[in-house]
Amino acid sequence: MGDERELLMIPGPTMVSPRVLRVMAKPVVSHVSGEFVEAFREALELTRRLFLSEGRVFILSGSGTLGMEAAIANVVEPGDRVLCVENGFFGEKFKDLVRAHGGEVDRLTFEWGEPVDVGLVRERLEEKPYKALTVEHVDTSTGIANPIDKVGEAARDFDALYIVDTVCGIGAMPVKVDEWGIDVCLTGSQKAIGAPPGLTLLTFSDDAWRVVEGRETPVTDYYADLRRWLPVMENPQRYFATPSVPLLLALREALRIVIEEGLEERWKRHEVIAEAVRRGVQSLGLTLFPREGYRANSLTVPEAPEGVAEQEVRRLMREKYRVIVAGGLGRLAGRTFRIGHMGTVTANDVVATLAALEMSLMELGYPVEAGTAVGEAEKQLTRL
Amino acid sequence: MGDERELLMIPGPTMVSPRVLRVMAKPVVSHVSGEFVEAFREALELTRRLFLSEGRVFILSGSGTLGMEAAIANVVEPGDRVLCVENGFFGEKFKDLVRAHGGEVDRLTFEWGEPVDVGLVRERLEEKPYKALTVEHVDTSTGIANPIDKVGEAARDFDALYIVDTVCGIGAMPVKVDEWGIDVCLTGSQKAIGAPPGLTLLTFSDDAWRVVEGRETPVTDYYADLRRWLPVMENPQRYFATPSVPLLLALREALRIVIEEGLEERWKRHEVIAEAVRRGVQSLGLTLFPREGYRANSLTVPEAPEGVAEQEVRRLMREKYRVIVAGGLGRLAGRTFRIGHMGTVTANDVVATLAALEMSLMELGYPVEAGTAVGEAEKQLTRL
Repeated sequence: MGDERELLMIPGPTMVSPRVLRVMAKPVVSHVSGEFVEAFREALELTRRLFLSEGRVFILSGSGTLGMEAAIANVVEPGDRVLCVENGFFGEKFKDLVRAHGGEVDRLTFEWGEPVDVGLVRERLEEKPYKALTVEHVDTSTGIANPIDKVGEAARDFDALYIVDTVCGIGAMPVKVDEWGIDVCLTGSQKAIGAPPGLTLLTFSDDAWRVVEGRETPVTDYYADLRRWLPVMENPQRYFATPSVPLLLALREALRIVIEEGLEERWKRHEVIAEAVRRGVQSLGLTLFPREGYRANSLTVPEAPEGVAEQEVRRLMREKYRVIVAGGLGRLAGRTFRIGHMGTVTANDVVATLAALEMSLMELGYPVEAGTAVGEAEKQLTRL
Repeated sequence: MGDERELLMIPGPTMVSPRVLRVMAKPVVSHVSGEFVEAFREALELTRRLFLSEGRVFILSGSGTLGMEAAIANVVEPGDRVLCVENGFFGEKFKDLVRAHGGEVDRLTFEWGEPVDVGLVRERLEEKPYKALTVEHVDTSTGIANPIDKVGEAARDFDALYIVDTVCGIGAMPVKVDEWGIDVCLTGSQKAIGAPPGLTLLTFSDDAWRVVEGRETPVTDYYADLRRWLPVMENPQRYFATPSVPLLLALREALRIVIEEGLEERWKRHEVIAEAVRRGVQSLGLTLFPREGYRANSLTVPEAPEGVAEQEVRRLMREKYRVIVAGGLGRLAGRTFRIGHMGTVTANDVVATLAALEMSLMELGYPVEAGTAVGEAEKQLTRL
């Protein structure tokens, strides 16, 4: 069907508010017009408010992966030692990025689905000095949410620059960049912020920027060299490379919605909705993949029940009930599936998704009492 | 006024067809959905047809500057010698890119407004071996169109990889990648293709790709490392980084419009419209900046008449007549202004722009017989 009424319940890109979609369809304006320059300024200011940071902020055209690269490329020089703390598909990207830029990587790896153990992080930081430490906030492959506030304390105690990828976290869960001592924090536009994909957002603390300014070797990247971008971020009338005008205007609108709702309210909404999804899914006898107590509020990763092919569940949900959920990623493919619930997500979306899951499981012969998951979810959703 | 009825006559971003704008407002779909994967495939195929190339094509999220970086970063290794042929603001970017990636730059520089002299290019290529040669097709700062077919013959004769930036050319003027022996060719989405800004498109010839595959050192970029992207371009179901779903769908629609019109027809339309603008502007006594015979068909760069502040002309055109033209760039600021006429541009846009120019000049006391430029333009536009 071509009526575009599907529910997009994947962990990014997420559904975008009609308010934001309308902005996307606006005739393109000049990238140096007063209107656009003002919008860019506002987007930067709203980014600061979202990240709870007074540091330098950057918005670049490109995916979250470009943001990860900008974080590493500007900080790491050849020979620098970096501790990459990993427990998922996306966390493991950092080691490749550090190596591509000449850094020496030490990996501290946890089982997928297990959270980062801050005690072990401290042990490694005690062993030798590190210039920087990288970690995922929420790894979209496993649905884990790492205790990035506590990891930040460890990084600060050992004077390592603290680099956090919160592509799948910020906007859904608390990220307090300045309070938690995050030196470089990055995300993408297309997850819990609720804008379309194509932009990446970063913050740099004073400490991090001093490191950038004090580099002995030039940044080998050109487009991701943030010193080339700083003048534009300080005054968007300046030119370095043509920004994606419609994406920037859309991001501004999405960030306005975030701030209008309020961060505390938004975190609460995501917490209630996530708990509704988790309890609903579990009421059907399905197991959640990540360790309890460390489950992200932006997505839920159930394991497929024994004897049921998760591809079939997703196919039925999509084709019959028009609810799109994602398959497992990397080594979890075929074993788990992933339900995204962040950004513009509403209680109605959750009810529809759980109902579609129930009906699809029933049709595949898995024993379900109709309405069970939806009922469990409702008990949570009344807290909204 | 907020009715969004301005005429955007700058040399990029350009006005976007309502057909393309509607696509931008479509609810976001999954980047691994059948619908999106099919659209990505079609966009890649249409890109091949636009570039007249059977080579490898790449579409990345980011600006044209990212495309320039991808061209250099994948080909150039530390110590490689590159001849950078320059005659404008954008051509001069290549030297910085080559140096950022460890290459040795020799510059062959021509006056801004003068075309590249192929004889001098040959002389330099004779002096020593070069791994690659870079050149701008159309430099958006000066409005020059370089003879890239002839430069290509020289590059081939001396076995240098031929890298062409046609950000402001392709879609408006002939670019025959395979026939002219262009090894790496790149553009942005927001100029003569008529899509919004935020994507860059590249082609790599077999020779160029052999060089990439045979590198002795790794590419220091990660996001712009095209070997990481090749699997995605061969099968867009694969994942490397999340593509900008709406921009990709919009690009597909814009490329469909390009191919529906036909390349020959499109080149002819741009030639007629450019000639109309040039003759119209000259009929008012204004001088065109770039050398005759080498003026691009995508933009026109008049010099401001003596005694008239070009900022004032542009302000009146914008505020009173709602026609947006661009100021001079770099060392041409204050001395020239720039009229973009590419992509979706129509005869009506040209008439309106020249009328606004006439009226603004009159109001500023410059002697104009009303209707002169429009009349001259009409004599050309009947050729459409």
